[in-house]
Amino acid sequence: MTIQDPLLHYYERITCSAQWKQFNRALAAELSVGLPPEENRQLFVRIGERVVQGMPVTRCNTLDELQVAFNAQWEAIDWGFCTLQEAGEHLSITHVCSPLAMAFGPDAVDWSSGFFEGAYQTWFAAQGIPPELRVRIDAPAEGNGASKVLLKLARSAS
Amino acid sequence: MTIQDPLLHYYERITCSAQWKQFNRALAAELSVGLPPEENRQLFVRIGERVVQGMPVTRCNTLDELQVAFNAQWEAIDWGFCTLQEAGEHLSITHVCSPLAMAFGPDAVDWSSGFFEGAYQTWFAAQGIPPELRVRIDAPAEGNGASKVLLKLARSAS
Amino acid sequence: MTIQDPLLHYYERITCSAQWKQFNRALAAELSVGLPPEENRQLFVRIGERVVQGMPVTRCNTLDELQVAFNAQWEAIDWGFCTLQEAGEHLSITHVCSPLAMAFGPDAVDWSSGFFEGAYQTWFAAQGIPPELRVRIDAPAEGNGASKVLLKLARSAS
Amino acid sequence: MTIQDPLLHYYERITCSAQWKQFNRALAAELSVGLPPEENRQLFVRIGERVVQGMPVTRCNTLDELQVAFNAQWEAIDWGFCTLQEAGEHLSITHVCSPLAMAFGPDAVDWSSGFFEGAYQTWFAAQGIPPELRVRIDAPAEGNGASKVLLKLARSAS
Repeated sequence: MTIQDPLLHYYERITCSAQWKQFNRALAAELSVGLPPEENRQLFVRIGERVVQGMPVTRCNTLDELQVAFNAQWEAIDWGFCTLQEAGEHLSITHVCSPLAMAFGPDAVDWSSGFFEGAYQTWFAAQGIPPELRVRIDAPAEGNGASKVLLKLARSAS
Repeated sequence: MTIQDPLLHYYERITCSAQWKQFNRALAAELSVGLPPEENRQLFVRIGERVVQGMPVTRCNTLDELQVAFNAQWEAIDWGFCTLQEAGEHLSITHVCSPLAMAFGPDAVDWSSGFFEGAYQTWFAAQGIPPELRVRIDAPAEGNGASKVLLKLARSAS
Repeated sequence: MTIQDPLLHYYERITCSAQWKQFNRALAAELSVGLPPEENRQLFVRIGERVVQGMPVTRCNTLDELQVAFNAQWEAIDWGFCTLQEAGEHLSITHVCSPLAMAFGPDAVDWSSGFFEGAYQTWFAAQGIPPELRVRIDAPAEGNGASKVLLKLARSAS
Repeated sequence: MTIQDPLLHYYERITCSAQWKQFNRALAAELSVGLPPEENRQLFVRIGERVVQGMPVTRCNTLDELQVAFNAQWEAIDWGFCTLQEAGEHLSITHVCSPLAMAFGPDAVDWSSGFFEGAYQTWFAAQGIPPELRVRIDAPAEGNGASKVLLKLARSAS
């Protein structure tokens, strides 16, 4: 634990607007008792697709440009930011400081993170990537803070 | 139309936190295509119950005290305020300035308003009202603005 | 009093971010005891100039375009909106729903409104209006709510 | 630089409400050209005193209780949190995650931090500490992030 941990913990705790924190927690509880996790994940994938359809990004020529364009959209709604990084056969997408984990709670992270699969898949598709490339949640990093989501854009069979 | 209408329209438009407006609209769209309105209404009734269970109100002796206690809770999360009024056989509950209508959109108002049924029913039950009294959405008032919700606490058969 | 008044009153009360309401009230109290009203007004005129220099507006061809451009900037920071109206020899500027009055309090309105003189003067100057035209606070309208500011762009001698 | 630094940097950047960031920066610029730093510092000390007079804290028996009580007040207005620590002859007060540095800018930190001297002095005085104990800004820690303020409660001659 470094000296920054309590600061990050504080910021993460307040990152979700107070107006919707209790509502979202109650929604997560209802979805958890009402539907299997995979259906909730699919629901959040589709919500991510719809949200991003309302936040279009122009065609970019470089990964850096794309990252800047994505982050302008995320920052406009206080949803944190991402880092894009080429890693051999795939592309790593790291999304941090979003209110998602705090909004829906730690128990829902497995399916609520589907939101970012739908969001990034929709944005990359609009950039014209080959259809066999899919965005997927990557294995959680060790010691991964709740507000960090790791994704991978790769061939769907990988 | 009075001079205040454009002001109210502006305030209503910004009343839902920008962080969750697009997410909530997308959620409403998914729920609308996925479930019949009555099931969505029931979901929102249960969400209202859960939210209010986390915002307990002490026993009050008068309707005025109760209104003050309810509104302290609503204001803490920027959810507007209510007016309670005895009207013969029933009690009128008017809730205004909540972000609900703007968050889920005008098409969802019929079922999203279920949130307030669940919320007020739970609070009144905790005050010890007889179980045959139920909170229900009242007929919408003429020229009723989207951010106003009219409810009625009455015998369930009424 | 119409039925909308309590709603407007509620919205006006919460229009200033809770993070800065107490700070701004304390600042207003300190400025009130420390400086004469005219110096405070001048300070707020200059603050308005600086704020608007950081929110540039492109050259517009019509009053409607200009109003849209101004309001895009104001809405981005939750500062309400304005209406521009030609009225014979002068131009009326009505700014509503700003957090200014709530932030600095009713006693400071006379000098805090200087903010909008500086802001609109700077924006109109950048549009290339003749230098003898000045933005000034107009006589307060009767029954004028605290969150409404009336200004006038006219020859300085008028 | 650790992996948390970009996250902290992001959170610090958005910690000041967008409604008041440009206003506060403009205020800081005006105060900087208008008054010597020491007068600005005194102004912010007095603002801190006034703000905290409106956020009273009950008498506490332990340092832990006091820290909890202070932080409940700070969190209610999104002003971060403090840690209190006894250190021999003095008491260390570390305040982090406040919007102050971002609001008034790095050049103003020397005098804007006076806010916390006034705030903590007023709170400690209300707890009945001997009058010769004063809260003062401590020497900035090495590598001290802009959003961290170190203070010391000690005999005024120390």
